[in-house]
Amino acid sequence: MDGLSAADGSEGKLRSLGKVLSYADANMSGSLDRLLQLLRIPSISCDPLYAGQCQEAARWLSDELGSIGFGSSVRQTAGHPVVVAHHKKTVGPHVLFYGHYDVQPVEPLDQWEADPFNPQLRVQPNGDSHIVARGASDDKGQLLTFVEACRAWKSVTGDLPISVSMFFEGEEESGSPSMDGFLDQAGDELTADIMLLCDTYLWEDAVPAITVMFRGLLEEEIEITCANRDLHSGAYGNAARNPIQVLAEVIASLRGPRGEVAIAGFYDDVKEIGQELKSELGTLHFDTHKFLENVGLSQSAGDQTYSVLEQVWTRPSCEINGIAGGYYGDGLKTIIPSKATAKVSFRLVDGQDPKKIRTMFHEHIRSRIPADCAVKFTELGGSTASVIPSDSEYLRRARAALKDEWGCKSVLIGSGGSIPIVSVMQTKLSINSLPIGFARSDNRHHSPNEKYDLSSFQKGIRSWIRILAELSADAGGDGYLKRRRRD
Amino acid sequence: MDGLSAADGSEGKLRSLGKVLSYADANMSGSLDRLLQLLRIPSISCDPLYAGQCQEAARWLSDELGSIGFGSSVRQTAGHPVVVAHHKKTVGPHVLFYGHYDVQPVEPLDQWEADPFNPQLRVQPNGDSHIVARGASDDKGQLLTFVEACRAWKSVTGDLPISVSMFFEGEEESGSPSMDGFLDQAGDELTADIMLLCDTYLWEDAVPAITVMFRGLLEEEIEITCANRDLHSGAYGNAARNPIQVLAEVIASLRGPRGEVAIAGFYDDVKEIGQELKSELGTLHFDTHKFLENVGLSQSAGDQTYSVLEQVWTRPSCEINGIAGGYYGDGLKTIIPSKATAKVSFRLVDGQDPKKIRTMFHEHIRSRIPADCAVKFTELGGSTASVIPSDSEYLRRARAALKDEWGCKSVLIGSGGSIPIVSVMQTKLSINSLPIGFARSDNRHHSPNEKYDLSSFQKGIRSWIRILAELSADAGGDGYLKRRRRD
Repeated sequence: MDGLSAADGSEGKLRSLGKVLSYADANMSGSLDRLLQLLRIPSISCDPLYAGQCQEAARWLSDELGSIGFGSSVRQTAGHPVVVAHHKKTVGPHVLFYGHYDVQPVEPLDQWEADPFNPQLRVQPNGDSHIVARGASDDKGQLLTFVEACRAWKSVTGDLPISVSMFFEGEEESGSPSMDGFLDQAGDELTADIMLLCDTYLWEDAVPAITVMFRGLLEEEIEITCANRDLHSGAYGNAARNPIQVLAEVIASLRGPRGEVAIAGFYDDVKEIGQELKSELGTLHFDTHKFLENVGLSQSAGDQTYSVLEQVWTRPSCEINGIAGGYYGDGLKTIIPSKATAKVSFRLVDGQDPKKIRTMFHEHIRSRIPADCAVKFTELGGSTASVIPSDSEYLRRARAALKDEWGCKSVLIGSGGSIPIVSVMQTKLSINSLPIGFARSDNRHHSPNEKYDLSSFQKGIRSWIRILAELSADAGGDGYLKRRRRD
Repeated sequence: MDGLSAADGSEGKLRSLGKVLSYADANMSGSLDRLLQLLRIPSISCDPLYAGQCQEAARWLSDELGSIGFGSSVRQTAGHPVVVAHHKKTVGPHVLFYGHYDVQPVEPLDQWEADPFNPQLRVQPNGDSHIVARGASDDKGQLLTFVEACRAWKSVTGDLPISVSMFFEGEEESGSPSMDGFLDQAGDELTADIMLLCDTYLWEDAVPAITVMFRGLLEEEIEITCANRDLHSGAYGNAARNPIQVLAEVIASLRGPRGEVAIAGFYDDVKEIGQELKSELGTLHFDTHKFLENVGLSQSAGDQTYSVLEQVWTRPSCEINGIAGGYYGDGLKTIIPSKATAKVSFRLVDGQDPKKIRTMFHEHIRSRIPADCAVKFTELGGSTASVIPSDSEYLRRARAALKDEWGCKSVLIGSGGSIPIVSVMQTKLSINSLPIGFARSDNRHHSPNEKYDLSSFQKGIRSWIRILAELSADAGGDGYLKRRRRD
């Protein structure tokens, strides 16, 4: 039953690949149905109210993997559970695929065109179709591209071309608080030659990309307290320190006149990117105007001495993700509140240590807090940036497979976002990653009306089918892949 | 049945007064029971969800006034209804008592020791007692002191010493948006010689006060929009303008280094207070340290060139009453939000025109909004400051009555708060006010665990019983009041 055994010749392998691709195409409606099932589970990780739904999503995934022959189980953690599944061969490379079944919250709910957990299939006038739902692209649709690729291989050949493990967490959108503990305990089981993941973007709709650079993330909540209770703004207005005013002043102090982050020492440890990567990035024709225009903007807000692409990929940032204080319901309430709070996050780049940045941030804030005010910091998570070697054999093979599927050269890109698992696996288990995603830039990750294009879903499945075959060349010895690569 | 008719001699009047005071003391449990009934109605005016409860509170008040012989009715307005009631004589002075049955919202609910609308009677170790409930002091407990005073007069003598009208609105805590329209239509009916109100404070627990100076109020909501949707803070962090950052920067710009309001021209029209009032205020020994310490503070935040009493009574202020933007639930959400909003209020002093200040504020904000941002202002109400003549006969008589009840001279004070009706009645109907309240400084108006002391309630009822008698001297011609005043 092993379609890629050494006894099977290269012609047979090519025939198998063609059959598997055809099978995937012919069975898209089943793949789509499974995606809709997973999207209907509101597995919002940051809200404790949805803990049961996170369990449900994990069970659903584990059951699906079991049904296609993986040894799969749900592992409980201090937070939401992890799904671990294995399908191993005795020889050849071993890949670990990572994904996350948790999703972002859905607020502001009134900006959604339909219930975020009742996925809608939308057909465009040009014939393109997409699914609108929370998690459609980030990361449920994307992770299923790999699961469905494995399903196709198994259905057609009864086996997978190489050893595959899978690892799905449920706290990616919450800073993965349980990941360290889980890896300390179960890390050995997750050892592999390379980690694959599908939580990234295409470069253009028809140009695949491998993301080789992620920013790190540091998240903090700060709470400022002045009076010991909310006060009447008439009785105390002027006299009592207003925590919203104080919070506004410290937030204002975080950015300088050029748009730079104005915390002393913030840029000290920033490492410039390597020359090879720099020249790869130089080949990209990034349309700054379109990037901003897509979201209703025309000018960048960051440090004006850098290009927009540099601002979002290679420069660290500081953003206020949320703020709350006093009364913000309908009408008015004439109070000076006792407290005000903000959620602040930093995107970090290579060289920056989250702990050091956290200390600088605390010092920056504390030195600006006037008398009678207390400030409380709550750490909400942190991870370092990561840079993936752009010269590895795995990367080379994946690019070859992508070229076969997409008909053009893939590009190496950066991401302003953070996939903490990439740096964690690098530092804890010395496993490098290959982040290959099929999301489009307009997929509205973290926003209302998140969507995933059916073309992304289908070509994603087909891409992974090819990548699995391409990576199996070592297993097959004198296989077709080596031959073709000599061409 | 007229206990104060011309035929009734001064001895009889004094006897009547004594009986009425005794009746009020003997019937405190009934008065308290009615207060609890009114407090159980959650008449929050700023939240449309409680519109029905505002109607209910108005009906309850109207029914009570009807039951003690007032011609009383509930009048619908564009917003919450108004209660108007009359009990008139053919001669003598005519007072109009004003109060409001609406209350502030109750957030933060978790800081209340019990349901804000399930009033709790708390007995202190020293024997003092108070009621904890939203509206206990502001203004349900206070307005009932006058209603119960009238009830006592009616119960004992079958009449009131002078003509009394009452007027209760249900939008005081929301800036009285329907008041202008109502007065334009029903103003003639509310004409009186003087307006009495009970929405103010004692100076000290045993020292009554008449408040002769109120700050005006200007309330605005500002909303800043940048991108056309919430964005992933990784994908756009640095590049996309963050509306919370922009909002923080404009709020920070509203106060200068001394704590002064930093809007150009803001202080231009401020009128200094008169010499007579200034010297009355000079006799007050205001304990700044205790005032701040009571709410957990030790230093004032306003313009340091003025005393704290000046900061809250005679200087205008700018306060942020609420702020909201992005995600502020549990955990974190790595977004750059599309919008951020703040509620900003100004306390104005004599001479400042709310319209002019509003224009200055808008210009100040607009000039600080960077490219790609839109700002939207929502007007939430405005009123001018008011100063009450401190040399009127009504004021003199009220002070005499208060001295009889409290055994010490009453003081003239200012209020940092705003009672818009005082300036509206002054400008629209040329009616001056006598604001006499019995709230203590620790009654926590607008805050969790608002309370009203039973001693305030009882001595408030007794004070109004005496004030009604004192003001009736004109009706009685050669009555005891005139005689006593010659002593």
